[in-house]
Amino acid sequence: MEDMRKPIPVEEAISRVWERRPNGATDDIPITDVDNRRLSDDIFASHSVPSFPKSPYDGFALRSADTTEAGRNHSVSFKVVEHIGAGELPQKQLHEGEATRIMTGAKIPDGADCIAMFEICQTYTDNGQSYMSMTRTMESGQNIIEEGSEVAKGDLLIPRGTMINPGVKAVLATFGYSDVKVSRKPVVGIIATGTELLDVDEDLEPGKIRNSNAYMIASQIKRVGADYRYFGKLEDNLEESYDMVSKALAEVDMLITTGGVSVGDFDFMPAIYDKLEADVLFNKVAMRPGSVTTAAVSGDTLLYGLSGNPSACYVGFELFVRPILQHQLASQKPFLKRIKAVLGTDFPKPNPFTRFVRSYITYHNGSVHALPSGIDKSNVVTSLANADALTVLPGGTRGFKNGDDVEVLLLDDREGQREF
Amino acid sequence: MEDMRKPIPVEEAISRVWERRPNGATDDIPITDVDNRRLSDDIFASHSVPSFPKSPYDGFALRSADTTEAGRNHSVSFKVVEHIGAGELPQKQLHEGEATRIMTGAKIPDGADCIAMFEICQTYTDNGQSYMSMTRTMESGQNIIEEGSEVAKGDLLIPRGTMINPGVKAVLATFGYSDVKVSRKPVVGIIATGTELLDVDEDLEPGKIRNSNAYMIASQIKRVGADYRYFGKLEDNLEESYDMVSKALAEVDMLITTGGVSVGDFDFMPAIYDKLEADVLFNKVAMRPGSVTTAAVSGDTLLYGLSGNPSACYVGFELFVRPILQHQLASQKPFLKRIKAVLGTDFPKPNPFTRFVRSYITYHNGSVHALPSGIDKSNVVTSLANADALTVLPGGTRGFKNGDDVEVLLLDDREGQREF
Repeated sequence: MEDMRKPIPVEEAISRVWERRPNGATDDIPITDVDNRRLSDDIFASHSVPSFPKSPYDGFALRSADTTEAGRNHSVSFKVVEHIGAGELPQKQLHEGEATRIMTGAKIPDGADCIAMFEICQTYTDNGQSYMSMTRTMESGQNIIEEGSEVAKGDLLIPRGTMINPGVKAVLATFGYSDVKVSRKPVVGIIATGTELLDVDEDLEPGKIRNSNAYMIASQIKRVGADYRYFGKLEDNLEESYDMVSKALAEVDMLITTGGVSVGDFDFMPAIYDKLEADVLFNKVAMRPGSVTTAAVSGDTLLYGLSGNPSACYVGFELFVRPILQHQLASQKPFLKRIKAVLGTDFPKPNPFTRFVRSYITYHNGSVHALPSGIDKSNVVTSLANADALTVLPGGTRGFKNGDDVEVLLLDDREGQREF
Repeated sequence: MEDMRKPIPVEEAISRVWERRPNGATDDIPITDVDNRRLSDDIFASHSVPSFPKSPYDGFALRSADTTEAGRNHSVSFKVVEHIGAGELPQKQLHEGEATRIMTGAKIPDGADCIAMFEICQTYTDNGQSYMSMTRTMESGQNIIEEGSEVAKGDLLIPRGTMINPGVKAVLATFGYSDVKVSRKPVVGIIATGTELLDVDEDLEPGKIRNSNAYMIASQIKRVGADYRYFGKLEDNLEESYDMVSKALAEVDMLITTGGVSVGDFDFMPAIYDKLEADVLFNKVAMRPGSVTTAAVSGDTLLYGLSGNPSACYVGFELFVRPILQHQLASQKPFLKRIKAVLGTDFPKPNPFTRFVRSYITYHNGSVHALPSGIDKSNVVTSLANADALTVLPGGTRGFKNGDDVEVLLLDDREGQREF
């Protein structure tokens, strides 16, 4: 009846699943669909930027040599020989005393070596011919954005594994990536266990609770950028349950069960691992919540037995499942970003196990504070709803005080870090 | 030729569009589809949690009064009359000297007032009858999670406007929200202008650039949680352009054009506003980049003329469009979250206009630092790709130094704040 499992440290547990991480695949998709996907290849500049010398302003292109005589009391005049908009190409080469009216972003005409902004130019017409005069001298290269001054052809622009945000998408469009190679979404199977579970649309019955874990995990899977497949609830029967798990394993990249992993008489996930001849990587972790988390490998497929307790299930996913999915999705920083913060409350009781406290981050005058999102009993249910971080309280013989320096793991961060 | 428009402060520009914000609508969708949508209604507890007194452990339910005589040298024995798993209901009321074997989460049988964990119990069988003995005393209520101790029926759980993350979804499932009222996604029209624009799948030509703004804005719209519709490029002809804009206006909740708003000879958005008899709210803002941003209202529909310059377009969207969409999406904190940070570089040149510098946030020992993502010239193109914040450098007569305290607006934050 007693639990003879030996808890291992969190770092050791993460390292054991990490060693069995599968690699991901690649999809080729149109640029319209790339939001929030991760690049599976490095993105290089297919051309220099700008790809031609261009004007940063609306103004006149001219030869700086023609302005040497200009001064407060001496204006120099130019014959306006052409008028080009952005996207139009200059047709005429400039000669001495000639200027081209030019719009922002347009290509500099041959012969010109500077741009005078409209603001310093006077325009006039004489006999139907346009002229421009100015009283300032210009330097060669002034107000010209040189070809390749922003990006050289072949430059690495965005590294593999980056999640595509609006700025990344702009870069992809600029360089003509109409189709983009992104990491394929792994498909994660979900199976709920527990005879006490009602479906979300069922009326509450005495002794029962609704199945919230399956919905929560589906959402956690989607937050990482993967897809899920829900196989339903396990039957209360070892043989049928075994069949369901082995069938699911064959159809997904990874399988998660929730519940059925503690030492209760009705928890038979351990028997299923045995029957599958799965390699159990760990079945107890020195952490709160989530100490009864199990990870196993069947064939090449990772099989997680997360706790039936919602908070333990949530934390188990974020610590042990998320980094593996991020790796399959080509992220080069697959682990939750860990930053320092100031603890906003007391945790007077020591705990031998490392605690991961559901928390939210606030900022005060440039410093980061972490406050538990479920500190009051009345918040137990909503503590996961408000959490955007997990505060890490290392196990040991002391408690923690308001104002202590602690580390927090950021849940909504999209960048991550290389190591746990 | 000179630009006679009068720049207004950023705050004033935001306030002018904010006054014309439309309200949003509501959709009723299944819980499986709610990720990243925003709740359009407050969510209340449809029942107490737990909805019955339950056991936090695997153990034995018993009457504490029966343990008074227990001690290190005196064990008390109980007849085990029933065995219930989580989700099973106790059928038998406990009488003196009786215990029920109970699993974590199961309902406490009538008559019992405490739970003894397996770890402190010895079990044995006598003549086919199960017994349990223990040497400790128990108190009434010990290890019992009382009905309603976590949530009382009718409690406000999650306020309207909250974005649905995995934790919120778990709450919705727990309380039986199989269908969820969420804010309807507004549809934002996008029209690109500029004869210099090539489509993303076209080969580069001299004097031309690819249209990156339309893709970027589509992605910014999706990041907020709205939908977009791309109408293509405006023709280089006032009449056809006017027709396209007025047709688009009739089909969307909001319309964005990019480019065509500066003072260049080929920019005719101002003429289109005139012809639409649109109420122009502003057409120049004292900011960099994006000073030529225009906002207008035609009928009840907001019509934005964002700059054709990618950075200006990006910033214009985040400052002037995003809060309006967030409001339509029922967010109660529609403005970008603004926090204090330490500036990570020098900006020696003063600027009369407020600058919004594309930046990324780093954390050092609990303090927040902001570093421009496009500080080197070579980063101009990728500065938007790396940006997760905008550093606000107020306009004035002084520059800024590495180490200065500055404010930053967070772009990837999902919470926001109530005021700009």
